[in-house]
Amino acid sequence: MIVIGEKINGAIPSVAKAIAERDADWIRNLAKIQTEAGADFIDVCASVKDDEVETMHWLIDLVQEVTDTPICIDSPSAEVCVACMPFCKKPGMINSVSMEGNKCDVVFSAIQGTPWQCVALLCGKGIPKSAEERLGVFSQIMAKAKEYNIAPSRLHIDPLVEMLCTSEDGISMVIEVIQTVKEKYPSIHVTGAVSNISFNLPVRKVLNQAFLVLSMNAGMDSAVLDPTNRDMMGMMYATEAMLGLDDYCMEYIGAYREGIFGPVKA
Amino acid sequence: MIVIGEKINGAIPSVAKAIAERDADWIRNLAKIQTEAGADFIDVCASVKDDEVETMHWLIDLVQEVTDTPICIDSPSAEVCVACMPFCKKPGMINSVSMEGNKCDVVFSAIQGTPWQCVALLCGKGIPKSAEERLGVFSQIMAKAKEYNIAPSRLHIDPLVEMLCTSEDGISMVIEVIQTVKEKYPSIHVTGAVSNISFNLPVRKVLNQAFLVLSMNAGMDSAVLDPTNRDMMGMMYATEAMLGLDDYCMEYIGAYREGIFGPVKA
Repeated sequence: MIVIGEKINGAIPSVAKAIAERDADWIRNLAKIQTEAGADFIDVCASVKDDEVETMHWLIDLVQEVTDTPICIDSPSAEVCVACMPFCKKPGMINSVSMEGNKCDVVFSAIQGTPWQCVALLCGKGIPKSAEERLGVFSQIMAKAKEYNIAPSRLHIDPLVEMLCTSEDGISMVIEVIQTVKEKYPSIHVTGAVSNISFNLPVRKVLNQAFLVLSMNAGMDSAVLDPTNRDMMGMMYATEAMLGLDDYCMEYIGAYREGIFGPVKA
Repeated sequence: MIVIGEKINGAIPSVAKAIAERDADWIRNLAKIQTEAGADFIDVCASVKDDEVETMHWLIDLVQEVTDTPICIDSPSAEVCVACMPFCKKPGMINSVSMEGNKCDVVFSAIQGTPWQCVALLCGKGIPKSAEERLGVFSQIMAKAKEYNIAPSRLHIDPLVEMLCTSEDGISMVIEVIQTVKEKYPSIHVTGAVSNISFNLPVRKVLNQAFLVLSMNAGMDSAVLDPTNRDMMGMMYATEAMLGLDDYCMEYIGAYREGIFGPVKA
């Protein structure tokens, strides 16, 4: 499982405050704790109206002061994402492209011939309602990726996780999308913002955990989440063991011994 | 999901002590808290060497003093199970039969023509290693059920949950058994002792929860577990909502409001 640590995001009020006040220690600490918790990428999203590239530069520099974990550059603007690539000391991930406007062209042309990875959302301007439509967008994205010679293994397809409370048939649609994407390209990654599932419902953690298990079972192998959430990390290792991806639970036991999950040791 | 509350079991040291000391209040309390937590059946297992029927009688009477929730009579002896049926004020469940000896004949002939339900383990004298062998035992049990005119909907098939730590391919075998049983008889119930999965591993609760989610996804709709385990109950309701068995999460929200899961209210 590839963990994209979500904590450095200006959409979170405490992070917005740290960004506004240029509280460098706050940001460094978020990078540090996510690295220690086992993040594979540190997502960096400024979520500011003005000076987004400068703010991203400041954030990325701070993260790189405390960790070698690669950066996941997160912006709704493809141009901003590409502009931030030179700030990164090592190849990371772009978050994200979709079939909206010319995003694929802008990002894929920039990462062509590099080892950079990329999140691709299965939407255009709006969010398609059916599995069929999302898989239609998927085909379009894969055609674009082929055009720029981006191997499927460099893509993290986000099927778009939506809130469960307005669904009439549970998560069957998103599960169908995940399974189909994985069947068509076994080397591709499937990712998602797991906690979207529980918007507007009580006790969000159990819903997030149940969704993680079911989406991993369908083929999700990457996720945007909080790696310092020990229950979530434990559920991830437990599920990998259940799915036969962890012989004799050695990874599960190892992660427990490293303190990634389980009761906090004094 | 049908919850069979597992707390009144003489194999648990504190319960063994209560049985040895004939601590009626201890037993009544276990029945009460499991009922309040939402159990559909109260499992009663004496786990004593001598005077098993008498001990079961004492236990069953105590449970029935405090709750109307039906009893699940639990004994390795089919004869003891049948002998305890008259102690129950209303039809319950027998736990369990298997293809060992004449268990099916003893129990099925006793519950023939009644509404009693029955747990059936997919084993004979030993525990079959492969899915194929367990499904072979399943066919034999269904033939016996047909002989005694026991409808599939009265059976809770236990595929035998074994510890994950000695498995090389995760839970794929038990999942295959659950799926096949449900496909062959859609009205049948599939049950299991969920916590068996985590024997000899650290942080058992995350493994138990991940297994519950995956086995429910495969078709398990009944479980022997501790209904006072709020995380487990929450995971159960969350999974039903994910699987499209709970329109607009109304059951999930209802169970939360009733206090079945979530933070304990002061």
